[in-house]
Amino acid sequence: MLSQSELLHLFKETRKDSENICSFLETEDYVVQPIVDVSPPKWHLGHTTWFFEEFVLKKYAEDHTLFDENTAFVFNSYYESVGEKVVRTDRGNLSRPTVAWIYKYREYVTTEIIRLLKNNTLSNEALDVMEIGCHHEKQHQELLYADIKYILGNNPLMPEYNQQFEENPVQDFEREWVDVTEGIYEIGHTSEDFCYDNELGVHKIYLHDFSISNKLVTNSEYMEFVEAGGYDDVLLWHAEAWDWVNTNEIKTPFYWHKVENKWHQYTLGGLKPLNPDAPVTHISYYEAFAYAQWKGMRLPTEQEWEIAQKHFDWGSRWEWTESAYSPYPNYQKADGALGEYNGKFMVNQKVLRGASVATSSKHSRYTYRNFFHPQLRWQFTGFRLVK
Amino acid sequence: MLSQSELLHLFKETRKDSENICSFLETEDYVVQPIVDVSPPKWHLGHTTWFFEEFVLKKYAEDHTLFDENTAFVFNSYYESVGEKVVRTDRGNLSRPTVAWIYKYREYVTTEIIRLLKNNTLSNEALDVMEIGCHHEKQHQELLYADIKYILGNNPLMPEYNQQFEENPVQDFEREWVDVTEGIYEIGHTSEDFCYDNELGVHKIYLHDFSISNKLVTNSEYMEFVEAGGYDDVLLWHAEAWDWVNTNEIKTPFYWHKVENKWHQYTLGGLKPLNPDAPVTHISYYEAFAYAQWKGMRLPTEQEWEIAQKHFDWGSRWEWTESAYSPYPNYQKADGALGEYNGKFMVNQKVLRGASVATSSKHSRYTYRNFFHPQLRWQFTGFRLVK
Amino acid sequence: MLSQSELLHLFKETRKDSENICSFLETEDYVVQPIVDVSPPKWHLGHTTWFFEEFVLKKYAEDHTLFDENTAFVFNSYYESVGEKVVRTDRGNLSRPTVAWIYKYREYVTTEIIRLLKNNTLSNEALDVMEIGCHHEKQHQELLYADIKYILGNNPLMPEYNQQFEENPVQDFEREWVDVTEGIYEIGHTSEDFCYDNELGVHKIYLHDFSISNKLVTNSEYMEFVEAGGYDDVLLWHAEAWDWVNTNEIKTPFYWHKVENKWHQYTLGGLKPLNPDAPVTHISYYEAFAYAQWKGMRLPTEQEWEIAQKHFDWGSRWEWTESAYSPYPNYQKADGALGEYNGKFMVNQKVLRGASVATSSKHSRYTYRNFFHPQLRWQFTGFRLVK
Amino acid sequence: MLSQSELLHLFKETRKDSENICSFLETEDYVVQPIVDVSPPKWHLGHTTWFFEEFVLKKYAEDHTLFDENTAFVFNSYYESVGEKVVRTDRGNLSRPTVAWIYKYREYVTTEIIRLLKNNTLSNEALDVMEIGCHHEKQHQELLYADIKYILGNNPLMPEYNQQFEENPVQDFEREWVDVTEGIYEIGHTSEDFCYDNELGVHKIYLHDFSISNKLVTNSEYMEFVEAGGYDDVLLWHAEAWDWVNTNEIKTPFYWHKVENKWHQYTLGGLKPLNPDAPVTHISYYEAFAYAQWKGMRLPTEQEWEIAQKHFDWGSRWEWTESAYSPYPNYQKADGALGEYNGKFMVNQKVLRGASVATSSKHSRYTYRNFFHPQLRWQFTGFRLVK
Repeated sequence: MLSQSELLHLFKETRKDSENICSFLETEDYVVQPIVDVSPPKWHLGHTTWFFEEFVLKKYAEDHTLFDENTAFVFNSYYESVGEKVVRTDRGNLSRPTVAWIYKYREYVTTEIIRLLKNNTLSNEALDVMEIGCHHEKQHQELLYADIKYILGNNPLMPEYNQQFEENPVQDFEREWVDVTEGIYEIGHTSEDFCYDNELGVHKIYLHDFSISNKLVTNSEYMEFVEAGGYDDVLLWHAEAWDWVNTNEIKTPFYWHKVENKWHQYTLGGLKPLNPDAPVTHISYYEAFAYAQWKGMRLPTEQEWEIAQKHFDWGSRWEWTESAYSPYPNYQKADGALGEYNGKFMVNQKVLRGASVATSSKHSRYTYRNFFHPQLRWQFTGFRLVK
Repeated sequence: MLSQSELLHLFKETRKDSENICSFLETEDYVVQPIVDVSPPKWHLGHTTWFFEEFVLKKYAEDHTLFDENTAFVFNSYYESVGEKVVRTDRGNLSRPTVAWIYKYREYVTTEIIRLLKNNTLSNEALDVMEIGCHHEKQHQELLYADIKYILGNNPLMPEYNQQFEENPVQDFEREWVDVTEGIYEIGHTSEDFCYDNELGVHKIYLHDFSISNKLVTNSEYMEFVEAGGYDDVLLWHAEAWDWVNTNEIKTPFYWHKVENKWHQYTLGGLKPLNPDAPVTHISYYEAFAYAQWKGMRLPTEQEWEIAQKHFDWGSRWEWTESAYSPYPNYQKADGALGEYNGKFMVNQKVLRGASVATSSKHSRYTYRNFFHPQLRWQFTGFRLVK
Repeated sequence: MLSQSELLHLFKETRKDSENICSFLETEDYVVQPIVDVSPPKWHLGHTTWFFEEFVLKKYAEDHTLFDENTAFVFNSYYESVGEKVVRTDRGNLSRPTVAWIYKYREYVTTEIIRLLKNNTLSNEALDVMEIGCHHEKQHQELLYADIKYILGNNPLMPEYNQQFEENPVQDFEREWVDVTEGIYEIGHTSEDFCYDNELGVHKIYLHDFSISNKLVTNSEYMEFVEAGGYDDVLLWHAEAWDWVNTNEIKTPFYWHKVENKWHQYTLGGLKPLNPDAPVTHISYYEAFAYAQWKGMRLPTEQEWEIAQKHFDWGSRWEWTESAYSPYPNYQKADGALGEYNGKFMVNQKVLRGASVATSSKHSRYTYRNFFHPQLRWQFTGFRLVK
Repeated sequence: MLSQSELLHLFKETRKDSENICSFLETEDYVVQPIVDVSPPKWHLGHTTWFFEEFVLKKYAEDHTLFDENTAFVFNSYYESVGEKVVRTDRGNLSRPTVAWIYKYREYVTTEIIRLLKNNTLSNEALDVMEIGCHHEKQHQELLYADIKYILGNNPLMPEYNQQFEENPVQDFEREWVDVTEGIYEIGHTSEDFCYDNELGVHKIYLHDFSISNKLVTNSEYMEFVEAGGYDDVLLWHAEAWDWVNTNEIKTPFYWHKVENKWHQYTLGGLKPLNPDAPVTHISYYEAFAYAQWKGMRLPTEQEWEIAQKHFDWGSRWEWTESAYSPYPNYQKADGALGEYNGKFMVNQKVLRGASVATSSKHSRYTYRNFFHPQLRWQFTGFRLVK
């Protein structure tokens, strides 16, 4: 557990990071919500701020004056047990409060939290919530990248976000297969460092022999699947996936565009020729699964991934696993609103392991259990194979 | 027909008006599209500008340099015969081009048009299109008011637009009934002044005896209907209206809110107590019809309205009529893209006559045929009765 | 007005006709509802029977015993003011009551009505309702044909209904143009014979010069439009029509199929080669309008049609007019449930005039105002041109 | 593996069972499809027959003459790799082929299969497919019960199916908790008897200490949850479940009706007072989970269930587990069309263990992995708790 001064440092750094991410935006980019899964950037900035005011300042700061009691409620999110909330699909209709207002709100809350941490000795409970708040904001930073990419990359003008952002690090080595031997293993978070409740409860599992690739599937490998008609072969796909492919006329990963007969990819640096050696990204679980079927292989389970991860390099793509998102044995969700954080999503989602180019600093660890619906592609997703 | 210098004056005034309307907005307000019928204000500003560049400068200004050939296409509207267009429902997803860009685009086109009108003698054809362009922009000014009201009035914070905007002029006189005698009459546009193609073709019609109110239905009168259970009595409603009432749980006009047990109305000046003497507004044709049924009366046809209008005061509300929007005898739509202006909407819409508090100067006349789908309420609509 | 014995005759004949129409069906054909506009044949048989029990026997037959008070309510239709009703979209889910039950119900009610008419002298009011009931059933007979055609013609097996049914009578004469001169005319129902309330109120109208074709547009004429790319030219279509064409990928009239490179048409006698000389049918108002635009002509208004009709042959196709379905001057809908019959549909529909090959005997007259939504095609619709 | 004569016996018995189940239906009941998850009974009868013709007779019976090559394709199901298929949602629109036709088709195929088995020695491969075909039909028998219950139970007349069918066996003993100790266990199908591919691959797993109830949750226990406001407490539900509860206004298990202030349940024997001691049924996974949360307990995983099952009585309800439906280690789906049987459903579904009152004879075993989407309730589902 972090000391109060470490926490203060983490907090200041985290708040700054969110603002840095948004520094490349125009005011208009903060506002729109092209699909329900994407939130307007201004909402992320407001919501992460609301979190600190609602769960820290209101509870632990004596005589805290709310920045604006009639406005902040629009930044409540899925925390349905805390008062009224704005329906999620409506976020993109809200022109007010303005971006300028939100930056003032951020500044006020940041200042108040700093004051609180500097002038008081917080209980462990309060420190816990502070730490969750920082990691919560880091999670939203990753969403910010994905949402900004969606907003700009689905605009017919395809504006750049930031030429410096490097999305496509190449794994410049040969593929090898890491063998893991059958037996009892232990997974789950062990250290004193921060983790979410869904990682807790170290527990034994039984694994069977498997071999896992030390390298992610690349664009050129995936292109073979595309060109071999993988998207047209019903036998490679789940039934629901097949409906999804056909209803949405999916034929390639997301953000691929053929320009003058050459494959390009929209990146946060604008439209670029597709790098064949970079790990494929912006694919759904359905596509990862279909590719694996086509290769006669499979995706790892999250348990396999966690045990094998020390043998390979990870962190540029969130890696789809075969595992559905379920509670660990003896998982108990937290009481009250914070208890809604993870447990309530444990159905109809797949676990992703690792981290991505958009993951914030100090926000990746090998026990992290990310999760998305199997059809979603707006994150920096990828996968590796098991045989 | 206006002289070239009159037109120049009209043009400058019109361009300025649009910008004045938007001067009360925050940047964020320009961007959102909460429902498909509402366009983002920035889109209106861009689209009316695109109209002048596309139909005037490109055609009549020698050596015109396009402001930006890769961008302006996003402001094409229903003119499906002019190149690619952005699907209408997507307007609210486009953060780019920015508001600042659009103001530059406006300035450029305004300047170029002024230069054109000052330095050249335009053909009648070109002057015609210029005049249409001005009235087209005036039409969008009225839409701007309605769309801005929707955007702000459906935001849970209910921000004010402009305290000075007066929406609710009271008709401060007793109701009287104007009698019109059976016989042949003539309707349609006759003067040399501007009108749309749908008003042309003066023609004889046969009217039967009727009496029409000199006064619009007021809030207090409509309130009686609400309180008498009008929204619950199936026999008062069209079949489609009944579905609409129930599906959308309609119980009052749009923008009515009960606050502390008193009826209020969101106005462009913010939330205000409902003025009982003001004409009811933001109601659908369905509601106007049901009210008339309840009173044992009916709505006027557009022909009746046009013949009787000289006997009463009009202009604060677009008045629903019983008439479906259809072509006048011998109506012929214009060739090419401009021909799409009116004719293609002549199905499933109801004619509204008069004008409203949001109608631009020089944009109202007694032959004007406005039209909307019968369920729409975001405009400043109202009605008067016939018996 | 019919005498009581004429009415008895009409009633017996009408009841028989419905059963004759259904005599070609399998039990299964009575049950399904492939789209919301199509009702299961068993529903038509039950509903027309319920009408007589509800509005005649319950009211005018002393000591009438209901056939089954717990069941008949499923045959209530749009008469929302008479008790509970089954939501219209659900009709196709109801396997019970069975077809056999319905035939027993029919027999019971038919017998009771005959007994009533034979043994009592009915009031004019009761005779009125009886006559409406007969014509109501005749209207459902036409729906039965259209619905049966839809049910069988959209089954991949395309079963025949009845080889003898002749859908495609050829108008074996040259096209001529009937000229009507500008002036005052009178329309509306005048005779003592039955009509619906929407035809009542003879009234003067003012018509302008027009010429109307004495012949319906034929398949071969319409084929020219298809082959000239009429479905691809946005300028020919209403805005809503263009959406409809594209969303539904409409490329020809309904029931046209290309088999071995030759156009065929599904008919109640099965799949047949398209007869080029027969009047085109199963087209929407949108298509009729677009064709007329393409020819540089237009559709008649219903007033024009009624005045000109004595100069041409009509009755094989319901003819789309340009007129929206609106009340005649001084139209007053009947009180209570029967008042729901016509008035509540007077919005968003187009008037069709004439009659079709599926219209029942004694159910066609030149003042008849049929109406459908402009996109509907499952009826035997067609059109003639005006210039 | 069954001998050829045992298989012949199984086949004849199975075919008969399907027809017995349907013997209580009216022809109309065979036709309708009120929701997409429910298939018309005639479709089940045709589809199971098509299976034997397609996968057995076409492949293994020399000179087999198809019963009707133009019709049977409508009975292809999810086997997308075998020719054209009828879209699943359309099954309820097909009045043809008729029920009588389907019984003839059944008789023909049954006779031909019997002839094949009597007169030939089949390869193991062919015997395998025959056995799958029988179990496939048994699976559809269970669906038949659930679908028939839905069809009749959602008809406002609520007709009985069969008074003799006993849905609600009471577990007439006290609740006890079976303790299982942490350690390595083995699960998966071991015997020579029939199983599906998804049960294969006996493998070790690691379980942690748990206690499982020997008794299903009863109606009276579940009623406490209902009455305590369980359906109104957001903290008990998954996020998706909460949407589902609210969108569908779920307040009780399916088929519960309050009649004269007393809870009743629609059963295949008609509407009956709710038996408080019977196991609750027709609930979704979401509801089972929320109940468990409310009790501070949880659902078993499928592994826990399989290990513990020998200590308790099961078979009246399909029991929801916490486990998502995923492949066992080394699962390999079969080649070709039969490979579509199970694997392609392994996403977004929950495993149910046990069997129900509607499960066919010889079709239940403790390794059986049934699966449904978490919101479905039309099956005889229930659950037991773990602590």
